[in-house]
Amino acid sequence: MLLHLSTWTEVEAYLKHSQAIILPIGSTEQHSPMGLIGTDAICAQESARGVGDATGALVGPTIHVGMALHHCDFPGTISLRPTTLIQVIKDYLTCLTTAGFTKFFFINGHGGNIATLKAAFAETYGHLADLRLPNASLVKCRLANWFTCSSVYQLAKDLYGDQEGDHATPSEVAFTQYFYPEAIKEVHLSAEVCSENKIYSAADFRRRYPDGRMGSNPALAKPEHGKQFYELAVKELSNYYLEFVAGE
Amino acid sequence: MLLHLSTWTEVEAYLKHSQAIILPIGSTEQHSPMGLIGTDAICAQESARGVGDATGALVGPTIHVGMALHHCDFPGTISLRPTTLIQVIKDYLTCLTTAGFTKFFFINGHGGNIATLKAAFAETYGHLADLRLPNASLVKCRLANWFTCSSVYQLAKDLYGDQEGDHATPSEVAFTQYFYPEAIKEVHLSAEVCSENKIYSAADFRRRYPDGRMGSNPALAKPEHGKQFYELAVKELSNYYLEFVAGE
Amino acid sequence: MLLHLSTWTEVEAYLKHSQAIILPIGSTEQHSPMGLIGTDAICAQESARGVGDATGALVGPTIHVGMALHHCDFPGTISLRPTTLIQVIKDYLTCLTTAGFTKFFFINGHGGNIATLKAAFAETYGHLADLRLPNASLVKCRLANWFTCSSVYQLAKDLYGDQEGDHATPSEVAFTQYFYPEAIKEVHLSAEVCSENKIYSAADFRRRYPDGRMGSNPALAKPEHGKQFYELAVKELSNYYLEFVAGE
Amino acid sequence: MLLHLSTWTEVEAYLKHSQAIILPIGSTEQHSPMGLIGTDAICAQESARGVGDATGALVGPTIHVGMALHHCDFPGTISLRPTTLIQVIKDYLTCLTTAGFTKFFFINGHGGNIATLKAAFAETYGHLADLRLPNASLVKCRLANWFTCSSVYQLAKDLYGDQEGDHATPSEVAFTQYFYPEAIKEVHLSAEVCSENKIYSAADFRRRYPDGRMGSNPALAKPEHGKQFYELAVKELSNYYLEFVAGE
Amino acid sequence: MLLHLSTWTEVEAYLKHSQAIILPIGSTEQHSPMGLIGTDAICAQESARGVGDATGALVGPTIHVGMALHHCDFPGTISLRPTTLIQVIKDYLTCLTTAGFTKFFFINGHGGNIATLKAAFAETYGHLADLRLPNASLVKCRLANWFTCSSVYQLAKDLYGDQEGDHATPSEVAFTQYFYPEAIKEVHLSAEVCSENKIYSAADFRRRYPDGRMGSNPALAKPEHGKQFYELAVKELSNYYLEFVAGE
Amino acid sequence: MLLHLSTWTEVEAYLKHSQAIILPIGSTEQHSPMGLIGTDAICAQESARGVGDATGALVGPTIHVGMALHHCDFPGTISLRPTTLIQVIKDYLTCLTTAGFTKFFFINGHGGNIATLKAAFAETYGHLADLRLPNASLVKCRLANWFTCSSVYQLAKDLYGDQEGDHATPSEVAFTQYFYPEAIKEVHLSAEVCSENKIYSAADFRRRYPDGRMGSNPALAKPEHGKQFYELAVKELSNYYLEFVAGE
Repeated sequence: MLLHLSTWTEVEAYLKHSQAIILPIGSTEQHSPMGLIGTDAICAQESARGVGDATGALVGPTIHVGMALHHCDFPGTISLRPTTLIQVIKDYLTCLTTAGFTKFFFINGHGGNIATLKAAFAETYGHLADLRLPNASLVKCRLANWFTCSSVYQLAKDLYGDQEGDHATPSEVAFTQYFYPEAIKEVHLSAEVCSENKIYSAADFRRRYPDGRMGSNPALAKPEHGKQFYELAVKELSNYYLEFVAGE
Repeated sequence: MLLHLSTWTEVEAYLKHSQAIILPIGSTEQHSPMGLIGTDAICAQESARGVGDATGALVGPTIHVGMALHHCDFPGTISLRPTTLIQVIKDYLTCLTTAGFTKFFFINGHGGNIATLKAAFAETYGHLADLRLPNASLVKCRLANWFTCSSVYQLAKDLYGDQEGDHATPSEVAFTQYFYPEAIKEVHLSAEVCSENKIYSAADFRRRYPDGRMGSNPALAKPEHGKQFYELAVKELSNYYLEFVAGE
Repeated sequence: MLLHLSTWTEVEAYLKHSQAIILPIGSTEQHSPMGLIGTDAICAQESARGVGDATGALVGPTIHVGMALHHCDFPGTISLRPTTLIQVIKDYLTCLTTAGFTKFFFINGHGGNIATLKAAFAETYGHLADLRLPNASLVKCRLANWFTCSSVYQLAKDLYGDQEGDHATPSEVAFTQYFYPEAIKEVHLSAEVCSENKIYSAADFRRRYPDGRMGSNPALAKPEHGKQFYELAVKELSNYYLEFVAGE
Repeated sequence: MLLHLSTWTEVEAYLKHSQAIILPIGSTEQHSPMGLIGTDAICAQESARGVGDATGALVGPTIHVGMALHHCDFPGTISLRPTTLIQVIKDYLTCLTTAGFTKFFFINGHGGNIATLKAAFAETYGHLADLRLPNASLVKCRLANWFTCSSVYQLAKDLYGDQEGDHATPSEVAFTQYFYPEAIKEVHLSAEVCSENKIYSAADFRRRYPDGRMGSNPALAKPEHGKQFYELAVKELSNYYLEFVAGE
Repeated sequence: MLLHLSTWTEVEAYLKHSQAIILPIGSTEQHSPMGLIGTDAICAQESARGVGDATGALVGPTIHVGMALHHCDFPGTISLRPTTLIQVIKDYLTCLTTAGFTKFFFINGHGGNIATLKAAFAETYGHLADLRLPNASLVKCRLANWFTCSSVYQLAKDLYGDQEGDHATPSEVAFTQYFYPEAIKEVHLSAEVCSENKIYSAADFRRRYPDGRMGSNPALAKPEHGKQFYELAVKELSNYYLEFVAGE
Repeated sequence: MLLHLSTWTEVEAYLKHSQAIILPIGSTEQHSPMGLIGTDAICAQESARGVGDATGALVGPTIHVGMALHHCDFPGTISLRPTTLIQVIKDYLTCLTTAGFTKFFFINGHGGNIATLKAAFAETYGHLADLRLPNASLVKCRLANWFTCSSVYQLAKDLYGDQEGDHATPSEVAFTQYFYPEAIKEVHLSAEVCSENKIYSAADFRRRYPDGRMGSNPALAKPEHGKQFYELAVKELSNYYLEFVAGE
């Protein structure tokens, strides 16, 4: 059930039997000359919709822009500062908690969002308590990265070994290829790639990783891999969601 | 050309011949028991993509959540506070200006965003000057509402007369029906509807407009109307975009 | 009744029969080599005092500095950033609502304030609801520009035609001349003036409008015109105020 | 020379021989059932104008609302939070420093502003350095309270002794009576008054000082005293201003 | 009783008989080539612990970094901006008030903190009222500088006369020597020292006071003086604390 | 070398051969009825000083209060909101980078700080770039938790097995016992303890973990264990520091 294709009366009805909502969050950032700028948002959105279909959960609109300041020396990247993203999350959850939601399951497509999202959850719990909302103490946020699902991780290792790397990975590129085959890019990438995993400033990032890849070889990606990643992610995330909703 | 389906090297190439980008912005808010919560985002996104196709412009990711605090007493609404939305816009434009963009064409689907967006533009011009970006003084933002296009306005008047109303209008509902016919809702709406146009707090809004409509009869909407609205909007907005890009 | 010349016990008594207050807001910004830097504040303040006299309304202190970032490349301009002005308005209205006021009638002298004020109203409604003030849901803000009164607009057109322009207009200059005849400036203005109406950054503004005028000829202003403008504005704004106070 | 009655070209000319400006700041707060809510703003504004006349200094618009949170349980009080006032001052001084001003002489009418203003000066020096304005390191702010001038203090002691008190003092009430004789209030005040000088929360303030006075007897005020206070303040503040402008 | 060496159950027990806590605040800033960067924090911390021992008061953790922007052109200085420090204080006091504390006694070692702390107290009173904490209106903050104790001041005058100066004073240096004799520096200081007391920007400060001293001669400091200063400060501050706790 | 016991001239000299600084950060929060409220700050501070002694690194003042909102329903806890802590870190690093430091090694004693610190690093890199500091792109932050050192982790497992738990662990309690044997608490703890590891709001935390422990048995702690933990942490962190300083 997609929030954007629902009406308020349908949401009102949904709230009678569930107070949980899935919020997909991605990023708008360079993914090397081969991966799409929307990679993380696409993966998060499609995983979330798959989980929504599998579990009946309500799925909110995708947050397309996350925390990607370190990618900002590559054109096309858009990022929020961490403090802005925290305000955004706080505003979302305040609206939704006021309406009766208490369980927020974030399906995330970008490693760079993790720290800021966790900080935002803490900020929000405090804010909701300050507002004295009656359901404030029941609110629970959970962060679920599709790319750290163990089944996904295992498949990436099996298919790509060391060439999976840390950014612009073949697994995420494959995921997007499955959904957007028309946007598969034919690009020649340098054989050499920096395999460090150090993230500091945007200027340092571009110096260190000149074409944007971190130890990866996205040329290994294939749409049919993407289908596998998608299905594994949906299955594992669905279980995780159901467990979250059932738990205290 | 969709930013999310492009690579950073493609954006780099695009910037050599154009420094303009289209940013669609909608809202996630109640649109009566008949209209979709994603109405404004859908209309903005599809208009923007149409304009992108017609003009070759780069189209950024849709901002799904805008300024809709007055709708927050209806479940399913999500809103940013104005000050949060201003920070979001400032962050977006700072990234994009740093990369070389200078012309920002916002295609907007929600009246409630207008004031905050204009405030955000002013805040951003000042901020870019503070940062001493070399292209700061060239930056120009333009706000284009699909629903205030004169051709759109005229068609709505012709088709619906007074029943167009001010919120959850048949024109916007028709627009979404054309793109999501599977999400057309069969709902019985009260014949009576408050035809004022006064917006204060969320609590006042719900008291004044109990089902969320402001003077509108969305039951008049038809998908084929939506096609007409879409085509008129794309045509008029494309001209407006081209004029903006050409102008000083 | 001027707040500044009243005591708290008088305000307490006033609140027993009215919960409305007028807040004049202007700007401190260049108005060409002929118009006063305080033009917008003077017009707002005098209009507000006139309405206060005509209706018995309480009139608060004038907000002299508004949102004029685009004028900041001309010396003497002082501006708040939009986010600062929003905080200012929120603080004002929080104090006044706590004291029992619920209807805020802003008499505005500056077009550049409009968007930010509307954003501030939305921010404030949300904030007051967060604070759980008992009268929060009754709070209503209204923005009334003296210069968009239809009678004022018509007179300006009759007197000046196209030479009214958009900034440093003869109508606003005349208004100040009526109140400060000692500050009428004898200046020779260039016959050429840019008649565009495009506002971006401060640097762009100064390039586009080198002496600060936007399509206007303030040399046409006369103090006796100012008297007429003043009287029309007071009359029309008084009616608007009374209707606002009476309305739900 | 009043900024509000000047043009930008006059300010440009002024800046060639002086980079100093006087900024009056008051408060909008209860001053007992006898003193005016605008007392502090009136005293600051009139003192500033007097100094401007005596020294040829440029005088900016009066900041009518300062930091008066502790008075907010009395109706009619309007206050900025300290963090808001800091942003306001920062915005003012950033505009003015960009234009070429470097010496800011605040004439203050309210004790409650002092701490926040000093904090604002520090915040602003840091901000201007961050902006890398060429004249940033020359900027100097000075705070001058009319009511702590030694001559003023002495006269208050001579005229009122212990009954001068700490808030709603006869000296400040007399000052306003001199300028607004039409607003002299005939009120019977209780003979008893709390003579502590402790300021905590607004609720505590109202409990401690039920009618708003802190140890004062404003009934002693006379307009002719006000004239004396005014003249002493202008003389002493003018000297202080000239010394500030001359100093390094 | 040191908060850091206590458990929450001990704090719970303490709260049954006292709602007061001492919060030491210093600064991390240059104190000339002879004084320690931690001078202000050391003096505040040791004074606070002495008062805690003498009175049984609970002593919180030392705030080591305060408002020292004007010292930032000397390496080793760390400062918060005033607005940051205000948020810090507000967060501290909100936590502590929620837990039941209502009397906050700040023992301060740095003149540059005074204005910001006072602004922070006002901001906090307002914030606690907004949160509707049941004990909000009882909250009282008090600022006690060890170096403005009259006995301390008198001893400094007796020992050093004019060479006490205003920054990197022999009294504060002596205080730290008593606690950290191993960190006594042997440095040759210039005989000349600027004896002004003017604080503006960091750049101005360094120009004006090239080695960081303001009119002082810290070479006069001796550890045995430090013992005297410490004992006088503890005695006087203890009385002040007890009076604060006993008072309404 | 402790910053607080150094002078600015010593820091100036230090910067000629190293641009690195260690910043210890802890928390002020409940650690069950047995563990000290200052546990995390003590462990971070002592680890940092040990590393400083072993490597010659400069050690800044301990940040005693971190992000512990989830512990705030236990008295004695003090927390910053995540957005406040981000501002604090940004202010620290801006001062230090301006002075010439570029490598910031945070030794952390509290799991709850991790997300916010990482968000703060990202925010700071962006801010330093905005300021155009010449060394901005060289700045690198590194987070090192003493409790996640592999040697520490292994010893805890060996000594305590499952009873190490997740909060108020015997390892951290032992660490503090070694440094503060006088503050060892004799308390009877319930044999039952919740062994979940779920952190949401403060109210939820207290309901879930009634005495503050998360699956731990701090009664197993002994000062001599603490000595071992301390020595292992210092050794491992020293290597990590040296590697960080040497690396690009």
